[in-house]
Amino acid sequence: MAFARNQWYVAAYGDEVGRDLLVRTVLGEPLVLYRTEAGQAVALADRCVHRRYPLSASRLDGDTIVCGYHGFTYDSGGTCVFVPGQQRIPRTARVPSYPVVERDSFVWVWIGEPDRADPAGVPRAPWLADPGYAVVRGMEPLNARYGLLVDNLMDLSHETYLHGGYIGTPEVADTPITTQVDEDRGVVYVSRRMDDAACPPFYARSTGIQGRITRWQDIEYHPPCLYLLHSRIAPQGVYPPADGPDSAAFHAEIVYAITPSTEDTTYDFWAVARDFAIDDESVGEYLRTSNHTVVMQDVTALNLLERVIAAEPDKYQELSINIDTGGLAARRMLARLVEAGAPQRALQ
Amino acid sequence: MAFARNQWYVAAYGDEVGRDLLVRTVLGEPLVLYRTEAGQAVALADRCVHRRYPLSASRLDGDTIVCGYHGFTYDSGGTCVFVPGQQRIPRTARVPSYPVVERDSFVWVWIGEPDRADPAGVPRAPWLADPGYAVVRGMEPLNARYGLLVDNLMDLSHETYLHGGYIGTPEVADTPITTQVDEDRGVVYVSRRMDDAACPPFYARSTGIQGRITRWQDIEYHPPCLYLLHSRIAPQGVYPPADGPDSAAFHAEIVYAITPSTEDTTYDFWAVARDFAIDDESVGEYLRTSNHTVVMQDVTALNLLERVIAAEPDKYQELSINIDTGGLAARRMLARLVEAGAPQRALQ
Amino acid sequence: MAFARNQWYVAAYGDEVGRDLLVRTVLGEPLVLYRTEAGQAVALADRCVHRRYPLSASRLDGDTIVCGYHGFTYDSGGTCVFVPGQQRIPRTARVPSYPVVERDSFVWVWIGEPDRADPAGVPRAPWLADPGYAVVRGMEPLNARYGLLVDNLMDLSHETYLHGGYIGTPEVADTPITTQVDEDRGVVYVSRRMDDAACPPFYARSTGIQGRITRWQDIEYHPPCLYLLHSRIAPQGVYPPADGPDSAAFHAEIVYAITPSTEDTTYDFWAVARDFAIDDESVGEYLRTSNHTVVMQDVTALNLLERVIAAEPDKYQELSINIDTGGLAARRMLARLVEAGAPQRALQ
Repeated sequence: MAFARNQWYVAAYGDEVGRDLLVRTVLGEPLVLYRTEAGQAVALADRCVHRRYPLSASRLDGDTIVCGYHGFTYDSGGTCVFVPGQQRIPRTARVPSYPVVERDSFVWVWIGEPDRADPAGVPRAPWLADPGYAVVRGMEPLNARYGLLVDNLMDLSHETYLHGGYIGTPEVADTPITTQVDEDRGVVYVSRRMDDAACPPFYARSTGIQGRITRWQDIEYHPPCLYLLHSRIAPQGVYPPADGPDSAAFHAEIVYAITPSTEDTTYDFWAVARDFAIDDESVGEYLRTSNHTVVMQDVTALNLLERVIAAEPDKYQELSINIDTGGLAARRMLARLVEAGAPQRALQ
Repeated sequence: MAFARNQWYVAAYGDEVGRDLLVRTVLGEPLVLYRTEAGQAVALADRCVHRRYPLSASRLDGDTIVCGYHGFTYDSGGTCVFVPGQQRIPRTARVPSYPVVERDSFVWVWIGEPDRADPAGVPRAPWLADPGYAVVRGMEPLNARYGLLVDNLMDLSHETYLHGGYIGTPEVADTPITTQVDEDRGVVYVSRRMDDAACPPFYARSTGIQGRITRWQDIEYHPPCLYLLHSRIAPQGVYPPADGPDSAAFHAEIVYAITPSTEDTTYDFWAVARDFAIDDESVGEYLRTSNHTVVMQDVTALNLLERVIAAEPDKYQELSINIDTGGLAARRMLARLVEAGAPQRALQ
Repeated sequence: MAFARNQWYVAAYGDEVGRDLLVRTVLGEPLVLYRTEAGQAVALADRCVHRRYPLSASRLDGDTIVCGYHGFTYDSGGTCVFVPGQQRIPRTARVPSYPVVERDSFVWVWIGEPDRADPAGVPRAPWLADPGYAVVRGMEPLNARYGLLVDNLMDLSHETYLHGGYIGTPEVADTPITTQVDEDRGVVYVSRRMDDAACPPFYARSTGIQGRITRWQDIEYHPPCLYLLHSRIAPQGVYPPADGPDSAAFHAEIVYAITPSTEDTTYDFWAVARDFAIDDESVGEYLRTSNHTVVMQDVTALNLLERVIAAEPDKYQELSINIDTGGLAARRMLARLVEAGAPQRALQ
């Protein structure tokens, strides 16, 4: 599976990046991340120019990073400022530095040609840093290619079978979806609106609703990295008013950042932001634990599926049905991003 | 090492197959086995047609199997009877089902073209289900290609060196063998008849014979899967009468089913059926423990040999002597079965 | 990375070779080592001619080695002297035996054409068997290609960064080196002479010197296998007299044997011989523990570097500076030895 280069990817949560060195591999590129004394997040290639020793196995000295093998020292822009045994520093002694943008609690890095990086192109998940919402979140490393996680999240009918007892009920698998593709903005939309559904424990316990619900799942996927699920939960029959706020409903903004690490590993960043019970820590703890369990059910299933697909590459065939419309649209958009982001050839 | 397709293979013992899903990989093909409510053993391809999720990571609903990822549901013939989110089931939604025959406590599956499967072609080991015999048995997964186990079992001179103290004595390695090949029936016969041999602990303790023995080892190998060792033990000088039953001797029917799993793993099914002390559970327990130890000595040796051969594929050379006649005949017959069982090309 | 064949390599310390079978893989060739009843060290190929079973998984019978699978038996020259089931022993039944020389506590084996083996070509490390010196030593298996250990040892500026607190001080990285190459004798010399340096704990505690030191590091690398570091430690300003012994200084002869095992594993034999405090076991124990720690710091770093290089073979690039002069000379000499030792082609 090819990668879409020249795109923004989430490398970490902001509070993971500090004065200890953090290692992440994004699109196969090894990164070391840290924060300068002034607080600026830095992402450098994690390979010393001398003998390729990982800079992450080293230490900071102020804002510089000192290689733990022979002491080559780099500033936060990747320029070498010290080599052992001589005064002259070779002009080519620099490691690549990656454009970094912090938004909505995420540290985004640009993988591709640095001069094409536009911070305005970072897609947004504002609820994650909005005081009107309470957030639980985490990150799980996945031993599966990122496309399997995209497939998983674009087709929520699996909630009924893989996540029964948490977020799945029969109505999710039974209710048809509508899919829209906005080629200009580069977004795939998938909606499933259940007018009369059982309330799964995840929402029954966190919202306090008793009885059946009206449940809306509105997905926005911004390939390659950001996935948003607008989840609206209300007592059965309660719909948004024609004007005014939708205050009789409960809203959960479920955010995934899907960051390819290597060909067959992925960082699965997940967060749930809610506009209800925002000061009730017991609800937060319940949602954190429940959603972590749901994520781990996906991780277990996708790791298994990766092993199957990797072991039988010549037997790959699938059968797609209506529920796969959103996932197939996402694959097509990803394929175009892969093509568009590939290194330009000389004659073009 | 190529596989011989269009043949019967032992996938399990009958009592391993029930209402819990059993996973076995035979000739590289992933199978899920279970038993219908009426008791019929079923073997299906362990891959959902939708996204290849293993059906074995799922559950039974009556006689149907429900995929644990998105709920695709198959009947015991492999036909899909339910898909999520729509009424219409695609005509191509079916997983391969494998012909199954139960014989002599084994569940045999046909790997190849289903319409060529003939239950009459299943080779027999009737002692395993004969009330006149007592049976101990087991199965060990082997991390070695199946040919190494065939070699091992066709040349019992290794008993002297690898299984000394259990079933080996000097006479096994010292006594020449006779080999016969029945091309029409597809059987290799190897006999070693020791007129005056030490009695190894395996037989001394189970038969109660004191002193030296006359020991016959008559092998029948029915490639690819079934190996029979007719073992006759009697006090030294006691031979079968010209007519009437051989009641002064002790008979052990030692059965192996050699089932290739992947290129370098094998299922090693083993059983010892005896016509003596059949109600003496202490003898049974002793033979079970002893034969398991012997099998594990082989497993350890063959796993080691597999690592050697896999790591040095370009250095493969051997030196064969008289004791290898049976093993070489078996290899030739296997090679013909591989050729005969290969998928037919279009113009043939 | 290619190997230099037709060279002597250290396979073991002499006291590792006895009546128990020892397995070592040198330049990809599996060896079994043992000592005859008369005390002669023997190295045979660790593969039975019959079915390639490792002879190391077997046992000695006097000076012969008996294969644990079918009993093929070899004398200490590798000639087969027994096969099971028949009197005639095939003429080709022999395993390669390797020329062996014991020198300076090492067991050297010749990997290549046996008739080119000249014991006079074994390079010497006489301090290891000299009663005027006390020796501490060990061997660590390295999960890295041998070239990384050569690089490591030829450029001691890494002592400052990787071994600070043990043998490294700032002066090592700061002091330029001089490099000489003797093409005729096949030796690379690297010297670093520090006139006024901090005394690292390794020498402060073992010599008792207080205050600053004059520290000389004189390397002789005899490719492919033997590395000598003549380390001279004296109170600051104390130099060898114009004539007479250098008795005011402390001398440590630090010896490494770098033996390629496979493409990406290496035996790292290390020894420290000292001419001071030779009867003080507490100094010996301190140096043994300290040097083992230093070696394990290298092992950890090189294992990490191997994983990086192996995972990114197409990204290999380096930037070399003055400190690398010795390492680059060593690489060039190794490349010539690889070429010279390669099997001769028919027309040459």
